[in-house]
Amino acid sequence: MKRVKLIISYDGTAYAGWQLQPKQPTIEGKLNKALSELLEEEIAVIGASRTDSGVHALGNVAVFDTERSMSAEKICNAVNQRLPKDIRVQESYEVAPDFHPRRVLSKKTYEYRILNRKIAIPTERLYCHHVYYPLEVSLMQEAAGYLIGEHDFRSFCSIKTKAGDTVRIIYGLEVSKEGDIIKITITGNGFLYNMVRIITGTLMKVGRGTYAPESMRDMLDGCNRGLAGPTAPPNGLTLMKIEF
Amino acid sequence: MKRVKLIISYDGTAYAGWQLQPKQPTIEGKLNKALSELLEEEIAVIGASRTDSGVHALGNVAVFDTERSMSAEKICNAVNQRLPKDIRVQESYEVAPDFHPRRVLSKKTYEYRILNRKIAIPTERLYCHHVYYPLEVSLMQEAAGYLIGEHDFRSFCSIKTKAGDTVRIIYGLEVSKEGDIIKITITGNGFLYNMVRIITGTLMKVGRGTYAPESMRDMLDGCNRGLAGPTAPPNGLTLMKIEF
Repeated sequence: MKRVKLIISYDGTAYAGWQLQPKQPTIEGKLNKALSELLEEEIAVIGASRTDSGVHALGNVAVFDTERSMSAEKICNAVNQRLPKDIRVQESYEVAPDFHPRRVLSKKTYEYRILNRKIAIPTERLYCHHVYYPLEVSLMQEAAGYLIGEHDFRSFCSIKTKAGDTVRIIYGLEVSKEGDIIKITITGNGFLYNMVRIITGTLMKVGRGTYAPESMRDMLDGCNRGLAGPTAPPNGLTLMKIEF
Repeated sequence: MKRVKLIISYDGTAYAGWQLQPKQPTIEGKLNKALSELLEEEIAVIGASRTDSGVHALGNVAVFDTERSMSAEKICNAVNQRLPKDIRVQESYEVAPDFHPRRVLSKKTYEYRILNRKIAIPTERLYCHHVYYPLEVSLMQEAAGYLIGEHDFRSFCSIKTKAGDTVRIIYGLEVSKEGDIIKITITGNGFLYNMVRIITGTLMKVGRGTYAPESMRDMLDGCNRGLAGPTAPPNGLTLMKIEF
């Protein structure tokens, strides 16, 4: 038996998220089906990050165990033949049999894309959140600075969270603009439920002038979801990579 | 009565092209319906460029006549409320009543995007053509140079063309690479049926080493569709702008 690691990219538009659901299409469900057919044994992948419905990925990670002799490297191309076009395995290789992608330390990087112009652009609509009012990037950058480091992010996570410990480390949080697109790139040691989308929704309020950049400090200190901004929609969000 | 000009962007994925079809959804059909409902009179737009099924646009152009008093500038936002999300009017304004977008001189710019890497990226699949084998951009750039200027492009147009005169001017043809994406940007005084996609398919063959860059000269001279490369698929192509 061997354990195989997959690097997986997908367009989340058509899926009810990563995690297996009884009646809706999910990334995990499609992977289990394609791998089980390919290897002719029942495969159940273990994912590193259970992305929400509508969220995309360039480099999510999953592992699974197989009894088959097919080389781990060959699984990548072989399983892609059986996957829909909106899911593509980028790499596959063998890892230690006890490697569990949610039980080891990791660094995750997400990117949130905002299309900031009066009228939406149809070819950007699936991968950018459209904001028609002007956002002041310099204010968003200033606000982002307050969030970097180790903090209790309780104000920036869904009240539905099951996490007891809401302290996380943000290693980097950059806001940049190219043409009409504002990119928020965030790297951390883990993210609470909806955390990236709530941070984004809050930075958008700062960019509009509703909150002052320094109000981030009170939001962190308050440990109350009601203090932060709204949850930005899922389509702008992409899980870029996970480093172990 | 006034004539109104529209600048239109769309995601061509779900459409059978620009031109009205009896049973399939088209951009022209959706615009006529939305404008007719908004203005409560029968509207028939005249398009500048009848893009193919699956081809996208940032700045296609159309005009129509209306008896209504609604200001031409206001039509843009009003009609967007009635259009599907994959079509967005970017601007609307009044033009001279005899302005016909296919009967005046114009300069059109198209962009073709190729994703050049071993494995496709799902979030790029609708707007890039995926090529898994390596393409040598410098060879494509060299070949592109031969096509710039006034030439008979008969070898680079579909045999289904109805054009008698196949001489066109290409003002600019640039091949550039950023990350895994190769962009072909082409500006000309008009393009024959499938011309941009056949030029792209031919440059791809050059980039793979099948044709030498200087073979472009023989292709132009031969005036025979059989001499050029295949027609690249529509999803990589976007009509960027039209200047009159």
